[in-house]
Amino acid sequence: MPLPILPFEKIAKNAGARRMGKDAVEELRDVVEEYGFSLAQKAVKLGEHAGRRTVKEEDVELASKGIV
Amino acid sequence: MPLPILPFEKIAKNAGARRMGKDAVEELRDVVEEYGFSLAQKAVKLGEHAGRRTVKEEDVELASKGIV
Repeated sequence: MPLPILPFEKIAKNAGARRMGKDAVEELRDVVEEYGFSLAQKAVKLGEHAGRRTVKEEDVELASKGIV
Repeated sequence: MPLPILPFEKIAKNAGARRMGKDAVEELRDVVEEYGFSLAQKAVKLGEHAGRRTVKEEDVELASKGIV
């Protein structure tokens, strides 16, 4: 799947990780990617609900609020 | 911040988006990155809670369950 691993080492360091196992970084990437996929699915549904074929920023925003 | 934009166009397509505005893809990337940062912070705290300086896969897994 698409997300690269290196940015997650940076994110982990920014989040306070002094050391992080390779498995842990990969798990972080995988969980984040699943979240992104689920969020995108919700945004698509919200766009369709609004009568559009184009997913807009407002669909992603609403999807991220956890209402749907 | 670090996550590249292109993988999110792929994720959106896989999630069923036929068309998606540039702003929407950027919003998806931003929300996902914030989620990843928050998740990493929780994993760091869970590793410290377990008496470790190294963040392990199990910390990320537990953090992703939404318990903390």
